[in-house]
Amino acid sequence: MARRAKARRPCCFVRALVVAGIVASEEVVLQCCMKIRPATDADADAIWKIFHEVVADGDTYALDPNISREDALAYWFGPGTHTYVAEQPAKGIDGTYILRPNQSGGGSHVANAGFMVSANARRQGMGRAMADHCLSEARRLGFRAMQFNYVISTNTAAIRLWQDLGFEIVGTLPDAFHHSEKGYADVYVMYRSLLV
Amino acid sequence: MARRAKARRPCCFVRALVVAGIVASEEVVLQCCMKIRPATDADADAIWKIFHEVVADGDTYALDPNISREDALAYWFGPGTHTYVAEQPAKGIDGTYILRPNQSGGGSHVANAGFMVSANARRQGMGRAMADHCLSEARRLGFRAMQFNYVISTNTAAIRLWQDLGFEIVGTLPDAFHHSEKGYADVYVMYRSLLV
Repeated sequence: MARRAKARRPCCFVRALVVAGIVASEEVVLQCCMKIRPATDADADAIWKIFHEVVADGDTYALDPNISREDALAYWFGPGTHTYVAEQPAKGIDGTYILRPNQSGGGSHVANAGFMVSANARRQGMGRAMADHCLSEARRLGFRAMQFNYVISTNTAAIRLWQDLGFEIVGTLPDAFHHSEKGYADVYVMYRSLLV
Repeated sequence: MARRAKARRPCCFVRALVVAGIVASEEVVLQCCMKIRPATDADADAIWKIFHEVVADGDTYALDPNISREDALAYWFGPGTHTYVAEQPAKGIDGTYILRPNQSGGGSHVANAGFMVSANARRQGMGRAMADHCLSEARRLGFRAMQFNYVISTNTAAIRLWQDLGFEIVGTLPDAFHHSEKGYADVYVMYRSLLV
Protein backbone atom coordinates (compact mmCIF):
# COMPACT_ATOMS: atom_id res chain seq x y z
CA MET A 1 0.00 0.00 0.00
CA ALA A 2 2.82 2.43 0.88
CA ARG A 3 4.38 1.97 -2.54
CA ARG A 4 1.01 2.54 -4.27
CA ALA A 5 0.28 5.66 -2.29
CA LYS A 6 3.54 7.26 -3.45
CA ALA A 7 3.01 6.40 -7.14
CA ARG A 8 0.91 9.41 -8.09
CA ARG A 9 1.69 9.37 -11.81
CA PRO A 10 1.95 6.87 -14.66
CA CYS A 11 5.17 4.87 -14.54
CA CYS A 12 8.31 6.06 -16.36
CA PHE A 13 7.82 3.52 -19.13
CA VAL A 14 4.36 4.84 -19.98
CA ARG A 15 5.53 8.45 -19.95
CA ALA A 16 8.50 7.51 -22.15
CA LEU A 17 6.15 5.94 -24.72
CA VAL A 18 4.09 9.11 -24.86
CA VAL A 19 7.10 11.42 -25.04
CA ALA A 20 8.58 9.30 -27.84
CA GLY A 21 5.31 9.61 -29.74
CA ILE A 22 4.82 5.84 -29.82
CA VAL A 23 1.37 6.14 -28.26
CA ALA A 24 -1.05 9.05 -28.34
CA SER A 25 -1.62 9.45 -24.62
CA GLU A 26 -0.97 7.96 -21.23
CA GLU A 27 -4.64 6.96 -21.16
CA VAL A 28 -4.20 4.54 -24.06
CA VAL A 29 -1.42 2.68 -22.29
CA LEU A 30 -3.09 2.77 -18.91
CA GLN A 31 -6.23 1.19 -20.30
CA CYS A 32 -4.19 -1.55 -21.95
CA CYS A 33 -2.24 -2.27 -18.79
CA MET A 34 -5.23 -2.03 -16.46
CA LYS A 35 -6.52 -5.24 -14.94
CA ILE A 36 -10.06 -5.44 -13.57
CA ARG A 37 -10.83 -8.46 -11.41
CA PRO A 38 -13.15 -9.58 -8.60
CA ALA A 39 -12.07 -8.16 -5.24
CA THR A 40 -10.89 -10.36 -2.40
CA ASP A 41 -10.60 -9.75 1.32
CA ALA A 42 -6.95 -8.90 0.71
CA ASP A 43 -8.08 -5.80 -1.20
CA ALA A 44 -9.95 -4.33 1.78
CA ASP A 45 -7.25 -1.79 2.70
CA ALA A 46 -6.95 -0.49 -0.86
CA ILE A 47 -10.73 -0.27 -1.26
CA TRP A 48 -11.20 1.53 2.04
CA LYS A 49 -8.52 4.06 1.05
CA ILE A 50 -10.38 4.89 -2.17
CA PHE A 51 -13.82 4.76 -0.52
CA HIS A 52 -12.79 7.07 2.30
CA GLU A 53 -11.22 9.55 -0.09
CA VAL A 54 -14.29 9.65 -2.36
CA VAL A 55 -16.92 9.78 0.38
CA ALA A 56 -15.06 12.24 2.60
CA ASP A 57 -15.21 14.65 -0.32
CA GLY A 58 -18.99 14.52 0.14
CA ASP A 59 -20.02 15.86 -3.25
CA THR A 60 -20.55 12.78 -5.42
CA TYR A 61 -22.10 10.15 -3.14
CA ALA A 62 -25.02 10.46 -0.71
CA LEU A 63 -23.14 8.64 2.00
CA ASP A 64 -22.08 9.81 5.43
CA PRO A 65 -18.63 11.42 4.91
CA ASN A 66 -17.69 10.08 8.35
CA ILE A 67 -18.71 6.48 7.61
CA SER A 68 -16.50 3.97 9.44
CA ARG A 69 -14.17 1.52 7.69
CA GLU A 70 -16.31 -1.36 8.97
CA ASP A 71 -19.58 0.11 7.66
CA ALA A 72 -17.99 1.10 4.36
CA LEU A 73 -16.65 -2.40 3.70
CA ALA A 74 -19.95 -3.97 4.84
CA TYR A 75 -21.68 -1.77 2.23
CA TRP A 76 -19.16 -2.43 -0.55
CA PHE A 77 -19.06 -6.19 0.13
CA GLY A 78 -22.77 -6.51 1.00
CA PRO A 79 -24.86 -9.66 0.45
CA GLY A 80 -25.56 -10.23 -3.24
CA THR A 81 -22.98 -7.61 -4.23
CA HIS A 82 -20.25 -8.34 -6.77
CA THR A 83 -17.18 -6.27 -5.94
CA TYR A 84 -14.34 -5.57 -8.37
CA VAL A 85 -11.04 -3.70 -8.31
CA ALA A 86 -9.01 -2.08 -11.08
CA GLU A 87 -5.26 -2.15 -10.78
CA GLN A 88 -2.36 -0.96 -12.87
CA PRO A 89 1.23 -2.19 -12.96
CA ALA A 90 3.47 -0.29 -10.57
CA LYS A 91 0.48 1.57 -9.15
CA GLY A 92 -1.75 -1.02 -7.56
CA ILE A 93 -5.46 -0.65 -6.99
CA ASP A 94 -6.81 2.78 -7.89
CA GLY A 95 -10.42 1.95 -8.71
CA THR A 96 -13.25 -0.23 -7.49
CA TYR A 97 -16.85 -0.89 -8.40
CA ILE A 98 -19.85 -2.86 -7.21
CA LEU A 99 -22.58 -4.57 -9.20
CA ARG A 100 -25.77 -5.89 -7.61
CA PRO A 101 -29.52 -6.25 -8.11
CA ASN A 102 -31.15 -2.84 -7.65
CA GLN A 103 -34.18 -4.45 -5.99
CA SER A 104 -35.24 -7.89 -4.78
CA GLY A 105 -38.16 -10.04 -5.93
CA GLY A 106 -39.82 -8.75 -9.09
CA GLY A 107 -37.19 -6.04 -9.50
CA SER A 108 -34.10 -8.24 -9.35
CA HIS A 109 -33.56 -8.29 -13.14
CA VAL A 110 -32.33 -4.67 -13.03
CA ALA A 111 -28.74 -4.11 -11.95
CA ASN A 112 -27.31 -1.26 -9.95
CA ALA A 113 -23.66 -0.27 -9.85
CA GLY A 114 -21.37 2.15 -8.04
CA PHE A 115 -17.91 3.29 -9.08
CA MET A 116 -15.04 4.89 -7.21
CA VAL A 117 -11.66 6.05 -8.54
CA SER A 118 -8.87 7.48 -6.40
CA ALA A 119 -8.11 11.15 -7.03
CA ASN A 120 -4.65 10.44 -8.44
CA ALA A 121 -6.04 8.09 -11.11
CA ARG A 122 -8.83 10.27 -12.51
CA ARG A 123 -9.02 11.51 -16.11
CA GLN A 124 -7.12 8.44 -17.27
CA GLY A 125 -10.03 6.36 -18.53
CA MET A 126 -10.38 4.18 -15.45
CA GLY A 127 -14.05 5.07 -14.95
CA ARG A 128 -14.90 4.15 -18.55
CA ALA A 129 -12.88 0.93 -18.40
CA MET A 130 -14.66 -0.15 -15.21
CA ALA A 131 -18.06 0.84 -16.66
CA ASP A 132 -17.42 -1.22 -19.81
CA HIS A 133 -16.36 -4.14 -17.65
CA CYS A 134 -19.42 -3.67 -15.44
CA LEU A 135 -21.87 -3.66 -18.36
CA SER A 136 -20.26 -6.84 -19.67
CA GLU A 137 -20.46 -8.49 -16.25
CA ALA A 138 -24.08 -7.42 -15.83
CA ARG A 139 -25.00 -9.07 -19.14
CA ARG A 140 -23.04 -12.19 -18.18
CA LEU A 141 -24.97 -12.38 -14.90
CA GLY A 142 -28.27 -12.15 -16.77
CA PHE A 143 -29.44 -8.65 -15.85
CA ARG A 144 -31.82 -7.05 -18.36
CA ALA A 145 -31.10 -3.40 -17.52
CA MET A 146 -28.94 -1.18 -15.35
CA GLN A 147 -30.06 1.73 -13.21
CA PHE A 148 -28.21 4.44 -11.34
CA ASN A 149 -30.48 5.72 -8.60
CA TYR A 150 -28.60 8.81 -7.62
CA VAL A 151 -26.46 10.74 -10.09
CA ILE A 152 -25.90 14.21 -8.69
CA SER A 153 -26.43 16.84 -11.39
CA THR A 154 -23.22 18.66 -10.47
CA ASN A 155 -21.20 15.52 -11.30
CA THR A 156 -21.07 16.45 -14.99
CA ALA A 157 -18.13 14.18 -15.85
CA ALA A 158 -20.04 11.11 -14.66
CA ILE A 159 -23.25 12.17 -16.47
CA ARG A 160 -21.35 12.63 -19.75
CA LEU A 161 -19.75 9.20 -19.35
CA TRP A 162 -23.03 7.43 -18.58
CA GLN A 163 -24.78 9.12 -21.49
CA ASP A 164 -21.89 8.16 -23.74
CA LEU A 165 -22.39 4.56 -22.62
CA GLY A 166 -26.08 4.59 -23.52
CA PHE A 167 -27.69 5.62 -20.25
CA GLU A 168 -30.60 8.06 -20.31
CA ILE A 169 -31.91 10.37 -17.63
CA VAL A 170 -35.31 8.85 -16.81
CA GLY A 171 -36.04 10.88 -13.70
CA THR A 172 -35.10 14.13 -11.99
CA LEU A 173 -35.30 14.51 -8.21
CA PRO A 174 -35.58 18.22 -7.44
CA ASP A 175 -33.06 19.54 -4.90
CA ALA A 176 -32.49 16.02 -3.62
CA PHE A 177 -28.79 16.54 -2.82
CA HIS A 178 -27.18 19.20 -0.68
CA HIS A 179 -23.82 20.07 -2.20
CA SER A 180 -21.25 21.44 0.24
CA GLU A 181 -20.47 24.44 -1.99
CA LYS A 182 -23.32 24.71 -4.49
CA GLY A 183 -26.27 24.18 -2.13
CA TYR A 184 -29.29 22.12 -3.15
CA ALA A 185 -28.87 20.35 -6.48
CA ASP A 186 -31.09 18.11 -8.60
CA VAL A 187 -30.32 14.40 -8.80
CA TYR A 188 -30.86 12.21 -11.85
CA VAL A 189 -32.06 8.63 -12.14
CA MET A 190 -30.29 7.05 -15.13
CA TYR A 191 -31.21 3.84 -16.89
CA ARG A 192 -30.23 1.72 -19.84
CA SER A 193 -31.47 -1.56 -21.25
CA LEU A 194 -28.93 -4.38 -21.56
CA LEU A 195 -31.01 -6.15 -24.19
CA VAL A 196 -29.79 -4.00 -27.10
CA MET B 1 -53.53 -11.96 17.56
CA ALA B 2 -56.06 -14.80 17.23
CA ARG B 3 -58.89 -12.43 18.06
CA ARG B 4 -57.64 -9.88 15.53
CA ALA B 5 -57.33 -12.47 12.78
CA LYS B 6 -60.99 -13.42 13.19
CA ALA B 7 -62.23 -9.81 13.16
CA ARG B 8 -62.56 -9.40 9.40
CA ARG B 9 -65.21 -6.68 9.47
CA PRO B 10 -65.89 -3.42 11.32
CA CYS B 11 -67.31 -4.02 14.77
CA CYS B 12 -71.09 -4.21 15.36
CA PHE B 13 -71.19 -0.71 16.80
CA VAL B 14 -69.71 0.81 13.63
CA ARG B 15 -72.06 -1.15 11.40
CA ALA B 16 -75.01 -0.11 13.58
CA LEU B 17 -74.08 3.57 13.19
CA VAL B 18 -74.01 3.19 9.41
CA VAL B 19 -77.26 1.22 9.27
CA ALA B 20 -78.95 3.81 11.47
CA GLY B 21 -77.80 6.53 9.09
CA ILE B 22 -75.89 8.33 11.86
CA VAL B 23 -72.68 8.28 9.82
CA ALA B 24 -72.20 8.08 6.07
CA SER B 25 -69.93 5.08 5.90
CA GLU B 26 -67.85 2.64 7.90
CA GLU B 27 -64.75 4.42 6.61
CA VAL B 28 -65.67 7.64 8.43
CA VAL B 29 -65.92 5.87 11.77
CA LEU B 30 -62.87 3.72 11.21
CA GLN B 31 -60.71 6.76 10.49
CA CYS B 32 -61.99 8.43 13.65
CA CYS B 33 -61.35 5.36 15.76
CA MET B 34 -57.98 4.54 14.20
CA LYS B 35 -54.90 5.15 16.27
CA ILE B 36 -51.50 5.52 14.66
CA ARG B 37 -48.52 5.30 16.99
CA PRO B 38 -44.82 4.37 16.99
CA ALA B 39 -44.29 0.62 16.89
CA THR B 40 -42.67 -1.28 19.73
CA ASP B 41 -41.07 -4.70 19.91
CA ALA B 42 -44.40 -6.01 21.17
CA ASP B 43 -45.91 -5.25 17.72
CA ALA B 44 -43.48 -7.55 15.90
CA ASP B 45 -45.95 -10.43 15.45
CA ALA B 46 -48.69 -8.17 14.08
CA ILE B 47 -46.24 -6.41 11.73
CA TRP B 48 -44.79 -9.67 10.44
CA LYS B 49 -48.30 -10.98 9.73
CA ILE B 50 -49.08 -7.92 7.56
CA PHE B 51 -45.61 -7.84 6.00
CA HIS B 52 -45.71 -11.50 5.05
CA GLU B 53 -49.19 -11.20 3.57
CA VAL B 54 -48.27 -8.14 1.46
CA VAL B 55 -44.88 -9.39 0.27
CA ALA B 56 -45.98 -12.97 -0.41
CA ASP B 57 -48.47 -11.50 -2.86
CA GLY B 58 -45.41 -10.30 -4.80
CA ASP B 59 -47.07 -7.65 -6.94
CA THR B 60 -46.67 -4.41 -5.00
CA TYR B 61 -43.20 -4.58 -3.42
CA ALA B 62 -39.87 -5.51 -4.97
CA LEU B 63 -38.99 -7.75 -2.05
CA ASP B 64 -38.33 -11.47 -1.97
CA PRO B 65 -41.76 -13.09 -1.43
CA ASN B 66 -40.00 -15.72 0.67
CA ILE B 67 -38.23 -13.24 2.93
CA SER B 68 -37.79 -14.59 6.47
CA ARG B 69 -39.48 -13.10 9.53
CA GLU B 70 -36.06 -12.10 10.87
CA ASP B 71 -35.00 -10.32 7.67
CA ALA B 72 -38.40 -8.66 7.31
CA LEU B 73 -38.32 -7.22 10.82
CA ALA B 74 -34.66 -6.20 10.42
CA TYR B 75 -35.74 -4.26 7.31
CA TRP B 76 -38.86 -2.73 8.88
CA PHE B 77 -37.02 -1.78 12.10
CA GLY B 78 -33.72 -0.89 10.40
CA PRO B 79 -31.23 1.69 11.73
CA GLY B 80 -32.54 5.23 11.30
CA THR B 81 -36.03 3.92 10.47
CA HIS B 82 -39.14 5.22 12.26
CA THR B 83 -41.74 2.45 12.39
CA TYR B 84 -45.44 3.03 13.08
CA VAL B 85 -48.56 0.89 13.40
CA ALA B 86 -52.23 1.68 12.83
CA GLU B 87 -54.76 -0.04 15.03
CA GLN B 88 -58.51 0.02 15.42
CA PRO B 89 -60.67 -0.83 18.41
CA ALA B 90 -61.72 -4.48 18.43
CA LYS B 91 -59.52 -5.20 15.42
CA GLY B 92 -55.98 -4.54 16.52
CA ILE B 93 -53.10 -3.68 14.20
CA ASP B 94 -54.01 -3.78 10.53
CA GLY B 95 -51.51 -1.33 9.07
CA THR B 96 -47.89 -0.32 9.44
CA TYR B 97 -45.52 2.15 7.82
CA ILE B 98 -41.88 3.17 7.94
CA LEU B 99 -40.32 6.60 7.55
CA ARG B 100 -36.59 7.11 7.06
CA PRO B 101 -34.00 9.18 5.19
CA ASN B 102 -33.93 8.05 1.56
CA GLN B 103 -30.16 8.57 1.43
CA SER B 104 -27.33 9.42 3.80
CA GLY B 105 -24.99 12.40 3.80
CA GLY B 106 -26.03 15.14 1.37
CA GLY B 107 -29.27 13.30 0.56
CA SER B 108 -30.57 12.85 4.11
CA HIS B 109 -33.03 15.75 3.94
CA VAL B 110 -35.33 13.69 1.67
CA ALA B 111 -37.56 11.13 3.36
CA ASN B 112 -38.62 7.75 2.09
CA ALA B 113 -41.62 5.80 3.33
CA GLY B 114 -43.26 2.42 2.87
CA PHE B 115 -46.82 1.41 3.74
CA MET B 116 -48.50 -1.93 4.28
CA VAL B 117 -52.17 -2.66 5.05
CA SER B 118 -53.59 -6.12 5.74
CA ALA B 119 -55.97 -7.42 3.08
CA ASN B 120 -58.99 -7.36 5.39
CA ALA B 121 -58.52 -3.67 6.18
CA ARG B 122 -58.15 -2.29 2.66
CA ARG B 123 -60.51 0.25 1.06
CA GLN B 124 -61.31 1.70 4.47
CA GLY B 125 -59.05 4.76 4.37
CA MET B 126 -56.20 3.25 6.35
CA GLY B 127 -53.61 3.95 3.64
CA ARG B 128 -54.63 7.61 3.42
CA ALA B 129 -54.72 8.00 7.21
CA MET B 130 -51.21 6.55 7.53
CA ALA B 131 -49.94 8.69 4.64
CA ASP B 132 -51.33 11.87 6.25
CA HIS B 133 -49.71 10.85 9.52
CA CYS B 134 -46.45 10.08 7.72
CA LEU B 135 -46.31 13.46 5.96
CA SER B 136 -46.93 15.19 9.28
CA GLU B 137 -44.21 13.13 10.98
CA ALA B 138 -41.77 13.80 8.14
CA ARG B 139 -42.28 17.56 8.52
CA ARG B 140 -41.92 17.27 12.30
CA LEU B 141 -38.61 15.43 11.83
CA GLY B 142 -37.34 18.20 9.54
CA PHE B 143 -37.40 16.47 6.15
CA ARG B 144 -37.71 18.84 3.17
CA ALA B 145 -39.23 16.36 0.71
CA MET B 146 -40.48 12.80 0.40
CA GLN B 147 -39.64 10.30 -2.32
CA PHE B 148 -41.05 6.92 -3.26
CA ASN B 149 -38.38 5.07 -5.20
CA TYR B 150 -40.44 2.24 -6.55
CA VAL B 151 -44.16 2.63 -7.27
CA ILE B 152 -45.18 -0.17 -9.61
CA SER B 153 -47.35 1.18 -12.43
CA THR B 154 -49.91 -1.61 -12.02
CA ASN B 155 -50.58 -0.46 -8.44
CA THR B 156 -53.09 2.14 -9.61
CA ALA B 157 -54.79 2.60 -6.23
CA ALA B 158 -51.51 3.64 -4.62
CA ILE B 159 -50.62 5.96 -7.50
CA ARG B 160 -54.01 7.70 -7.28
CA LEU B 161 -53.58 8.15 -3.54
CA TRP B 162 -50.05 9.56 -3.81
CA GLN B 163 -51.09 11.96 -6.56
CA ASP B 164 -54.06 13.03 -4.47
CA LEU B 165 -51.61 13.77 -1.65
CA GLY B 166 -49.43 15.97 -3.85
CA PHE B 167 -46.86 13.52 -5.15
CA GLU B 168 -45.76 13.75 -8.76
CA ILE B 169 -44.25 11.13 -11.02
CA VAL B 170 -40.71 12.45 -11.57
CA GLY B 171 -39.26 9.36 -13.21
CA THR B 172 -40.29 6.26 -15.12
CA LEU B 173 -38.20 3.08 -15.04
CA PRO B 174 -39.06 1.04 -18.13
CA ASP B 175 -40.00 -2.58 -17.46
CA ALA B 176 -38.29 -2.42 -14.08
CA PHE B 177 -40.74 -4.78 -12.35
CA HIS B 178 -41.77 -8.27 -13.33
CA HIS B 179 -45.43 -8.73 -12.37
CA SER B 180 -46.48 -12.33 -11.73
CA GLU B 181 -49.50 -12.03 -14.05
CA LYS B 182 -48.93 -8.95 -16.19
CA GLY B 183 -45.28 -9.47 -17.09
CA TYR B 184 -42.80 -6.59 -17.22
CA ALA B 185 -44.25 -3.31 -16.01
CA ASP B 186 -42.91 0.23 -15.67
CA VAL B 187 -42.09 1.61 -12.26
CA TYR B 188 -42.52 5.22 -11.17
CA VAL B 189 -40.39 7.40 -8.94
CA MET B 190 -42.70 9.79 -7.08
CA TYR B 191 -41.71 12.93 -5.18
CA ARG B 192 -43.22 15.81 -3.31
CA SER B 193 -41.79 18.80 -1.51
CA LEU B 194 -42.67 19.18 2.16
CA LEU B 195 -41.91 22.91 2.10
CA VAL B 196 -45.26 23.91 0.61
